[in-house]
Amino acid sequence: MRLLSGHPEVGALRVASRGYEGLGIGSVYPQLAVEGSYVAPEEIEASDLDVAFVAYGHGESAETVSKALRSGARLVIDLSADFRLGDAELYGEWYGEHPTPELLDEAHYGLPEVFGAAEGRLIANPGCYPTAAILALAPVVRRVEGIRSVTINALSGVSGTGAKPSVKTHFVSVNESANAYGAPSHRHTPEIETLLRRVGEVPGVTFVPHLIPITRGELETIVVDLEDVPEADEVLGWFAEDYGTCAFVEAREEYPHILHVANTNRCRLSAAVDRRTGKLLLFSAVDNLLKGASGAAVQNMNLALEHEEELGLEHLT
Amino acid sequence: MRLLSGHPEVGALRVASRGYEGLGIGSVYPQLAVEGSYVAPEEIEASDLDVAFVAYGHGESAETVSKALRSGARLVIDLSADFRLGDAELYGEWYGEHPTPELLDEAHYGLPEVFGAAEGRLIANPGCYPTAAILALAPVVRRVEGIRSVTINALSGVSGTGAKPSVKTHFVSVNESANAYGAPSHRHTPEIETLLRRVGEVPGVTFVPHLIPITRGELETIVVDLEDVPEADEVLGWFAEDYGTCAFVEAREEYPHILHVANTNRCRLSAAVDRRTGKLLLFSAVDNLLKGASGAAVQNMNLALEHEEELGLEHLT
Amino acid sequence: MRLLSGHPEVGALRVASRGYEGLGIGSVYPQLAVEGSYVAPEEIEASDLDVAFVAYGHGESAETVSKALRSGARLVIDLSADFRLGDAELYGEWYGEHPTPELLDEAHYGLPEVFGAAEGRLIANPGCYPTAAILALAPVVRRVEGIRSVTINALSGVSGTGAKPSVKTHFVSVNESANAYGAPSHRHTPEIETLLRRVGEVPGVTFVPHLIPITRGELETIVVDLEDVPEADEVLGWFAEDYGTCAFVEAREEYPHILHVANTNRCRLSAAVDRRTGKLLLFSAVDNLLKGASGAAVQNMNLALEHEEELGLEHLT
Amino acid sequence: MRLLSGHPEVGALRVASRGYEGLGIGSVYPQLAVEGSYVAPEEIEASDLDVAFVAYGHGESAETVSKALRSGARLVIDLSADFRLGDAELYGEWYGEHPTPELLDEAHYGLPEVFGAAEGRLIANPGCYPTAAILALAPVVRRVEGIRSVTINALSGVSGTGAKPSVKTHFVSVNESANAYGAPSHRHTPEIETLLRRVGEVPGVTFVPHLIPITRGELETIVVDLEDVPEADEVLGWFAEDYGTCAFVEAREEYPHILHVANTNRCRLSAAVDRRTGKLLLFSAVDNLLKGASGAAVQNMNLALEHEEELGLEHLT
Repeated sequence: MRLLSGHPEVGALRVASRGYEGLGIGSVYPQLAVEGSYVAPEEIEASDLDVAFVAYGHGESAETVSKALRSGARLVIDLSADFRLGDAELYGEWYGEHPTPELLDEAHYGLPEVFGAAEGRLIANPGCYPTAAILALAPVVRRVEGIRSVTINALSGVSGTGAKPSVKTHFVSVNESANAYGAPSHRHTPEIETLLRRVGEVPGVTFVPHLIPITRGELETIVVDLEDVPEADEVLGWFAEDYGTCAFVEAREEYPHILHVANTNRCRLSAAVDRRTGKLLLFSAVDNLLKGASGAAVQNMNLALEHEEELGLEHLT
Repeated sequence: MRLLSGHPEVGALRVASRGYEGLGIGSVYPQLAVEGSYVAPEEIEASDLDVAFVAYGHGESAETVSKALRSGARLVIDLSADFRLGDAELYGEWYGEHPTPELLDEAHYGLPEVFGAAEGRLIANPGCYPTAAILALAPVVRRVEGIRSVTINALSGVSGTGAKPSVKTHFVSVNESANAYGAPSHRHTPEIETLLRRVGEVPGVTFVPHLIPITRGELETIVVDLEDVPEADEVLGWFAEDYGTCAFVEAREEYPHILHVANTNRCRLSAAVDRRTGKLLLFSAVDNLLKGASGAAVQNMNLALEHEEELGLEHLT
Repeated sequence: MRLLSGHPEVGALRVASRGYEGLGIGSVYPQLAVEGSYVAPEEIEASDLDVAFVAYGHGESAETVSKALRSGARLVIDLSADFRLGDAELYGEWYGEHPTPELLDEAHYGLPEVFGAAEGRLIANPGCYPTAAILALAPVVRRVEGIRSVTINALSGVSGTGAKPSVKTHFVSVNESANAYGAPSHRHTPEIETLLRRVGEVPGVTFVPHLIPITRGELETIVVDLEDVPEADEVLGWFAEDYGTCAFVEAREEYPHILHVANTNRCRLSAAVDRRTGKLLLFSAVDNLLKGASGAAVQNMNLALEHEEELGLEHLT
Repeated sequence: MRLLSGHPEVGALRVASRGYEGLGIGSVYPQLAVEGSYVAPEEIEASDLDVAFVAYGHGESAETVSKALRSGARLVIDLSADFRLGDAELYGEWYGEHPTPELLDEAHYGLPEVFGAAEGRLIANPGCYPTAAILALAPVVRRVEGIRSVTINALSGVSGTGAKPSVKTHFVSVNESANAYGAPSHRHTPEIETLLRRVGEVPGVTFVPHLIPITRGELETIVVDLEDVPEADEVLGWFAEDYGTCAFVEAREEYPHILHVANTNRCRLSAAVDRRTGKLLLFSAVDNLLKGASGAAVQNMNLALEHEEELGLEHLT
């Protein structure tokens, strides 16, 4: 809402919610200087929309997306997992039966630095962890053979676990602590594997996310075991080749800190080599709420509508 | 100082410092209710000491340890890295020339749950990261063959990086951030490898520490690639076998949170298996200031002087 | 539970809960190394108890307290507000009708540094904010006339607001923020006023609590407007006179930090004078979970049972 | 630097530093996507500048400001305290002898919501604490007589204490703590008093700042003792009258949280009345790095150069 309300090519903004309908946006989120109130989802006529952003949970999102497309919305950007895997069977293994398998082929995975701009009307906005992982790994997977294993260790702020109050998100549970969770079967694992396999060969990924006491941001440390370990400089060169013209992805020799990307739409990358053990280390940081969610969604909209990629996001570069 | 001043078998406590001499302990650390003032190191006659705790930096510690032993201290517990590796050549590769190689054979590595109580007069108190790593890995390394790789991903609070003010420890640099550091050549790596090899066969370890915005505590997530992956329950059983009678090490099915061990002398362990990729995951959490440093030192003193292992540490179990 | 299970004069410990009955204490609070399981309140026979600690909410507590006293418990320590004000009418104004007004006269307000040890069987354990406020103000109110106004500005960690998950205690709501709440009619206000008036004359108190992003600890900055402003040193002298023999209250020239008292049963005090505006400033810090709640409860038990005041609390001095 | 590099009316940006000269801006602050390198101050020719922002410490700033004005800079915005008090004698009492008293009359205090846009060439950018205090108090002081006392209790994040590493800003000193500091003679006190007295009558202010463990943001709770206490609603009405057309100041019934203003150029206000004690409570929150410093500086530049007040700051409303 904040990004769209400040976007120069966005006119009227309608915000629907099941739960907040009737409330002022600024009363629900006092930190937002966004005018207007929530309406009920039924009050929105999809055929009136140029662009629909759908942010329901997985499984719930697909039907709304389907309806919006049928009603004639010019572009639908889905922030759930429903259209990311592009495969009803794989989806079934991790999430349950897909509600609208017939739409899977229409969806474009919205990580433009790797997969380009969407041409169709449906964009599957990537998960936050996969964004950081794929941006770091794609340049390697694209060029290297003989990858024996990939281990992703991820750190995430609490906003990554959702807004719902629970014992797990209570300040006293999170503060001065850290813990692994969701391993070894976090649902972002197949998203990382499947999308990387569109780029090259990669074995199954071991993915271990951790919760740390910060509000926003994610850092991934990726250990790649491969036959011929390149030099770190060489990998930094691949990053430069693949992302040199990208506004929102940048590699540096210095390892990224979450602070370097928080409140930006940037992904920052680095690489190192452990010669003693023959491992390649990749580091990747994003803000899960921006490049890992809403910032990417606006970037995807810009590209699909043929605006400048950074339009409305300039202050987040 | 806090632990020793409350220890029932500790009589007079003398505290030396290069820098704080003459100052009251309570004025330097207002959170401590410890009586007395710092004296200069020269004012302490080692021959008067029953037990000397030496907490200088590596390289500086060895000479003071040597002097204390020669002067007749009954027991010397060294909190630096100087006597941990037990090998002048390996020490040379990671730290530089060892100042007192003739003493290396006398030192006992003070992780009693794995290596028993010290019998001699010199104890090398373990590093914080190695404590958590070795406690998690020793039961596996002892029983399993064909370990192909070990990757340790560690998270540490800021007290682990020392008390010296710097840009890196400034609140604004650390808060709302996280970053990898020291990889791939952190000096705790050879300590982990060398000590584990006293227990069984293990390849070189990939060790990636991270700084997170908490004051105290460490969490390690260890990914082991091995030929025959056991069940998680089996590994929990090994932990129970090896540590069942230990006051300060406990394994649970639930993954450990740093909060579960902060302000205790406990190490908490867990295990899981990623069947899809054939990896064993181990989790280990300690308070770097207690089980990872001073708490272990007091525990080592208790054992060496044949007190109860928990004496003076009961409130930290 | 942690304090009592480590207390040398506490034998069997029975823990009741409405909600956790049947669960292991260590599974509900993995950070506690306390053996045993919760039972339902009905399973506890009050006549078997030497000491009952009651920690229900206000209004609910009184009945249980009454029952425990009637059943013959030797000592009841109530951690709710029900017996603190000692006055059914005042209680009615702030909390509603008192369930057991006949017991009010039996209750002793358990701040022993000001009101001595309990002689009867019922102790009203003080609120956390009043503990810090009364310890700072009592020595002044006792000696000074002509106090024109008292303004208390209090900062509290999140554990002070209870364990229940809500939007207000969600990590993302609290982290990187701070806010006033409850003013100008927080229920600890009459507790502060009423108890201080047992010591001397004091006008109505303006009390403004704030939530800050820490787990535990409270800091109060108290501005006193009075006719003849003493010197700060004089006030520090009063603190020394009144609390010089107290194990858990200490005054210093240095302003107290929450870090100086966190994880202790200590209250730390200081004083300053703003000559330009003629105001006396008092500073007071406690750990709301210890001196502000459970630590004080154990201290009160010790005194009532004629044990050493610090018994089982030595590591918290 | 971030704000100016994204400002549509700012062309070339030159950044000087004593200490960072020669370094890339992005290497000193990896979180900034600002091109270019620091130069030495001597390399900048003030006559080439349209606008000079001077951010030296107090006492050091005045000479540089003076030189820039003499060299012909069109506008100088000074972020130090040197030109805020507008009175050499008062400055002398709190800071020492003023280096350029002849310039004091030329300076405009840059809080436009109270004192309007600058007409001259020198703007004294307000202190962070005074910004929050004056915005809250000016509407009251302007309308009310008989104010007997004003007590300001302020909470500040660590960025308010500067970037220099020290024991006081070490993560471990600040985290899980809070403390009063600087009271009762913090140098922002005379700034608050002097500027408010341009608006109405106000007695000496008791000002007690506190450090809390957050990176950015300030919250002030102001207790006003006055003869005829207005209703809270009336005060909210005064805020609406005075700031209704201001982009960056807003009053609400809900007490402001630092989270509501962090990363914005906004000041958020509220008011309450403690009828029992006859006190008016005002609440005011700002981001000390934006509305309390750089955001205000850009706002002041916009007004002085007759741009839209929000130009380049739209994403911070």
